Amino acid sequence: MTTPELGLPMAVPAPGLPATVRIHEVGARDGLQNEKATVPTEVKAEFIRRLAEAGLTTVEATSFVHPKWVPQLADAEQLFPLVRDLSDLSGTALPVLVPNERGLDRALALGATRIAVFASATESFAKANLNRTVDEALAMFVPVVDRAKAQRAHVRGYLSMCFGDPWEGPVPVAQVVRVCRALVDMGCDELSLGDTIGVATPGHVRALLAALGGAGVPVSALGVHFHDTYGQALANTLAALQHGVTTVDASAGGLGGCPYAKSATGNLATEDLVWMLRGLGIDTGVDLDRLIATSVWMADRLGRPSPSRTVRALSHKE
Amino acid sequence: MTTPELGLPMAVPAPGLPATVRIHEVGARDGLQNEKATVPTEVKAEFIRRLAEAGLTTVEATSFVHPKWVPQLADAEQLFPLVRDLSDLSGTALPVLVPNERGLDRALALGATRIAVFASATESFAKANLNRTVDEALAMFVPVVDRAKAQRAHVRGYLSMCFGDPWEGPVPVAQVVRVCRALVDMGCDELSLGDTIGVATPGHVRALLAALGGAGVPVSALGVHFHDTYGQALANTLAALQHGVTTVDASAGGLGGCPYAKSATGNLATEDLVWMLRGLGIDTGVDLDRLIATSVWMADRLGRPSPSRTVRALSHKE
Repeated sequence: MTTPELGLPMAVPAPGLPATVRIHEVGARDGLQNEKATVPTEVKAEFIRRLAEAGLTTVEATSFVHPKWVPQLADAEQLFPLVRDLSDLSGTALPVLVPNERGLDRALALGATRIAVFASATESFAKANLNRTVDEALAMFVPVVDRAKAQRAHVRGYLSMCFGDPWEGPVPVAQVVRVCRALVDMGCDELSLGDTIGVATPGHVRALLAALGGAGVPVSALGVHFHDTYGQALANTLAALQHGVTTVDASAGGLGGCPYAKSATGNLATEDLVWMLRGLGIDTGVDLDRLIATSVWMADRLGRPSPSRTVRALSHKE
Repeated sequence: MTTPELGLPMAVPAPGLPATVRIHEVGARDGLQNEKATVPTEVKAEFIRRLAEAGLTTVEATSFVHPKWVPQLADAEQLFPLVRDLSDLSGTALPVLVPNERGLDRALALGATRIAVFASATESFAKANLNRTVDEALAMFVPVVDRAKAQRAHVRGYLSMCFGDPWEGPVPVAQVVRVCRALVDMGCDELSLGDTIGVATPGHVRALLAALGGAGVPVSALGVHFHDTYGQALANTLAALQHGVTTVDASAGGLGGCPYAKSATGNLATEDLVWMLRGLGIDTGVDLDRLIATSVWMADRLGRPSPSRTVRALSHKE
C-alpha cells in the first residue's frame, strides 16, 4: 500500500543532526547467535553477502568464541573465508568478535582486520557472561587489544548493560563512564554502548553521552546499540543522533531473540532505522528494498516472520 | 526479568521537555473499531473502566457514527450510559466521536460533554472515508462544532493523513496547515494530528509543528496521533514533545489493526509511551502495571496477544 517508490517517507531534515550515519549491521553475528537450530554456513555467508549488496558498509560477520559457548557460531573458521573477499570487492568492513587472545589468534590467522571485544558495565553481567569481575575482564582484554593494534586491526569495544541490568536495576552513569574510559585507554578505536535489556529512554541516553563527553571520550568514537524490548530503540537513537552520534548498531529484520516472546524483538531492526534516517534525509547508502528482501529471505530460512515493523509493512503489499 | 519494581526505567529528565503529558487513550474507540468479531458492550464498558482505574484521564469511549459504517460501535447508545459515571467518579474525560449533526444529537442526548469530529488533510482520504471533498467535509462540521460549543462541549478535531497518504504519497505541510487552521477557526478546542499510515519521521513532525506555530495555531491546542506501522511512533512522539506538545494519543496494548499483518501494530501502544515518559521523568498519572494487566485482559478477550512491546516484555515474566 505504501512504498518508498511513492516517495515515502518524505525526506525532511531536522536541524542539528549528522549528514551521514554509519550502520553497524549485527544481524549475522548478534542476530543469529541465539538461534537454536543451526544455520548452515553457506546460508550465513549468503546472508552477509546480501547485506553488503544492500549497501551496508559494516557487517559484523561472526564470533571466534569457543564453540562450547556459542554453538551457532562454531563455524567461524569455515564462514569467514567465504565472505572475506567482500572487503576487497565492495570495501565492506567485516568485524568479528574475539573473546580472548585465542580468539584473536584465530581471527588474525584468517585475515580479519577489524575485531571487537565484549565488556560489561555491571558486575552481575560480567560474572554471568564472562565469569569474571568487570576489572578482571578488562585486564583480559588488554593483551587482546595490544596485539590487535600491533597488527593494525581496528578494535571495537562492546559494552553491555549501559543503562539497566536485570539483577542490579538502573546502572549509574559514572560506572559506565569508568569502563568506557578504560576501554578507550587500552586502545579501543570505537565503543558500542549497549542497552542489552532495552530499558533506556532518551534522557538517560543523553545523560550518558554528555558524561562521556565530559570524561574526554569523543562522540566520534561512540556507537549506540539499542534493543527494542520496550519499543524504545528508535527514540533512543534519535536522542543519540541529536547528541552527534554517527554510528548506530542494528540488526537486519530485527534478528536477535527476545528472551520473552517469540515475535518480540531484541535488536533494533535495521529497516526501521533506515526508514527514520531516510525520512530525516540522512544518508546511509542502504537500498531499503534490497535490505527488506534480504530479511524476508533470512526469515524464510529461520522459519518465522521478521519482527521488524517496516519489513512487515512492506513485505505484505496488497 | 525486568520490572518497574526494579526501578526501571531509571527516570532521567531531558532538558526542554514538558513536565506533564496528557495521554488521550483511544483503545476503546479507535482500537476496537476495526475488530471483526463483535465485542460485547459489557466488555467494552469494563475495558473503559479499567483504563480509567489505571490512571488514564482521557478515555475516548465510542463513536456515534451510523451502525452501517462501523458495526463494532453500533452499541454506542447502550455503552455510553454504562461508563458515564466515570466522569463524576474519577474526573475521567470521555470524548466520543460524532460524524455529523445526527451523531451529535445522539451524543448530547446521553450527556456527552466532549465530542470529536474527523477530518482529512487529503482529498483522496476525504473521498474514501467521508465521500466528500476536504472542504465539503469541513463545511459539514461547522454546524456540528457550532452546536457543540453552544452546549459548552469540548471539541476535538481529528485530522487524518497529516504526513503521507496511500494514494497521494507525501502530504505537503501547507495543505495540512490550511485544514488545521480551518478546524481551529470553526471552534475546535484541540486538534489531533494523525499519521494514519505511520510514515512520518521526526524532521517531518517538527516541520509540521513549526508551520502550525507560524500559522498561529498554539501548540497547547495540538495533540499528536502516531501509528507504529514502520516503528516510528515513539521517535516521532519524542520530536513532538521537544516541540512542546503535551497531548499524545495512544492505544492500550497497541490495539488497532494494521492492514498488513495480524501482529503488527497500528496505533502507538500506550504502554510503550508510558515507559518512555516514565524514563523521561514526565508525569502521566498512569499505573503501568494496572495498564498492562488491562491490556492483557483485553487481549484475552480478543483472542490474540497484544502487539505492544512493553506488554509483551512485562507480561512474560520468567
